[in-house]
Amino acid sequence: MRDRTWIAAACVGESLCVRVQGDDVQRRIGAGKPEQMLVEMLGSYLRDDVVLPVVFAGRDPLRLAKVPAVPPATLTPLPDIDPRIVLLGLDGLAQIRPADILGGEAAQVAGFVAAYPEWDGVLCLTGPSSKWVHISAGEVVSFQSFMTGEIFAALAGQSVLRKALEGDGWDEAAFTEALSDAMSRPERVAGQLFSLHASERLTGHDPAIARARLSGMLTGMEMAAARPYWLGRDVAVIGEGAQYEAALRAQGVPVDVHDAVALAFRGLELAYTAQGER
Amino acid sequence: MRDRTWIAAACVGESLCVRVQGDDVQRRIGAGKPEQMLVEMLGSYLRDDVVLPVVFAGRDPLRLAKVPAVPPATLTPLPDIDPRIVLLGLDGLAQIRPADILGGEAAQVAGFVAAYPEWDGVLCLTGPSSKWVHISAGEVVSFQSFMTGEIFAALAGQSVLRKALEGDGWDEAAFTEALSDAMSRPERVAGQLFSLHASERLTGHDPAIARARLSGMLTGMEMAAARPYWLGRDVAVIGEGAQYEAALRAQGVPVDVHDAVALAFRGLELAYTAQGER
Repeated sequence: MRDRTWIAAACVGESLCVRVQGDDVQRRIGAGKPEQMLVEMLGSYLRDDVVLPVVFAGRDPLRLAKVPAVPPATLTPLPDIDPRIVLLGLDGLAQIRPADILGGEAAQVAGFVAAYPEWDGVLCLTGPSSKWVHISAGEVVSFQSFMTGEIFAALAGQSVLRKALEGDGWDEAAFTEALSDAMSRPERVAGQLFSLHASERLTGHDPAIARARLSGMLTGMEMAAARPYWLGRDVAVIGEGAQYEAALRAQGVPVDVHDAVALAFRGLELAYTAQGER
Repeated sequence: MRDRTWIAAACVGESLCVRVQGDDVQRRIGAGKPEQMLVEMLGSYLRDDVVLPVVFAGRDPLRLAKVPAVPPATLTPLPDIDPRIVLLGLDGLAQIRPADILGGEAAQVAGFVAAYPEWDGVLCLTGPSSKWVHISAGEVVSFQSFMTGEIFAALAGQSVLRKALEGDGWDEAAFTEALSDAMSRPERVAGQLFSLHASERLTGHDPAIARARLSGMLTGMEMAAARPYWLGRDVAVIGEGAQYEAALRAQGVPVDVHDAVALAFRGLELAYTAQGER
């Protein structure tokens, strides 16, 4: 007889989130491999005499369904990572034109649609890559990914801006001004990035201003390009994305905010239950 | 009496270029410190009984003159790096609004203006950060920097695009199409970057196409934002920048191409000579 105990694990934003005995545990993935971290995080919970099902929303699902489609609720067995685990990957979504992929975020979408089956609007899934997902009649109609968070991290990590961005703090006024400029003139941002470095040299080091300005510039470019998604629609921000909330509210867009991890676990639970019923 | 032997050294693009006994030697700077590499590159040429003047166009000059200004020809003594060297830094240029800096590239500008004193137009100095410099009546009127090369390197180095960009090759048609799209719709590029990753997953790994598309997207954004510089003006591309030549020629802009290292050394020679005459 099958043991009814199972584990939910999801890549959410920059973290791997695992629900173990009712507790949610998170760890930053960084340059690590989520599957390997998973085994470490389960640690002492694994037993040699039981094969534990782990339902997993990984970054790069093995199977992708093409949109338009209902959010995925099907699990595909993944390659073995440990003899005490059977890893079941939640499928993701693919869009052919423009080419795009919804990987581990598909669990959040599934959880959201289950929680709000009548909802019609756009999800803004935050993270290093953010995703704008148009939901209608319980289906994912289309979606678009942006690398805003990744571009920020890449420029802060290895460009001439590194020194200007080094440090902490946040200047809300600098963010708001840069956001507004970039939303109305996104084509100018390419010519404004280097000024963050030049300002540091000419007027002094202020990472709170430099970081907020860069975030405002990049978020503004994203907001401008994502306008067809959010304009005239309800938007739900999923995960940590204060800059998206501020930007959307400034445009008069109604915004709800939801917990990404809770939605992801809900999506995984639905898939695991559906599989048991098949 | 002063020994008339001297050395010219300039940061050009990603390299440190040193002229030793008539030979030009280059080394990629990477994460290194140019001043330290300089001592290594001069190596056996240094003598304990002579203090050698090294005229240096470094990335971050100690003194900056404000534009509008003639290209710099003044040298400022820099902190000691070796007892056998006296390091004289060529000054750079600063622009207050928008904040911008012309560092080691100032030597190339000085060399160019000396070679073509009557020239009126725009220099496109290529490199990890490119610089568009408006020259009129022998003066630098204004300039604008772009981080196009740095953004490419940062995304190839540490983002979700790393795998898609890994490899070699170049697909000219993919570059031309992406360039043309980005020039006419620069505001869309933010929403197209992730598609390089998605395309790899959905249609297979082709780094020649991915690299050319990313270069086309980023160069197109730069060209669109730099339009006030190149539109209706003569443009001289300085250094290696085949993508700028292609983009400008496609827009019907007359383009000359010049050797960056030769111009930098000419600029340094002028400054050293001028100093001797003062």
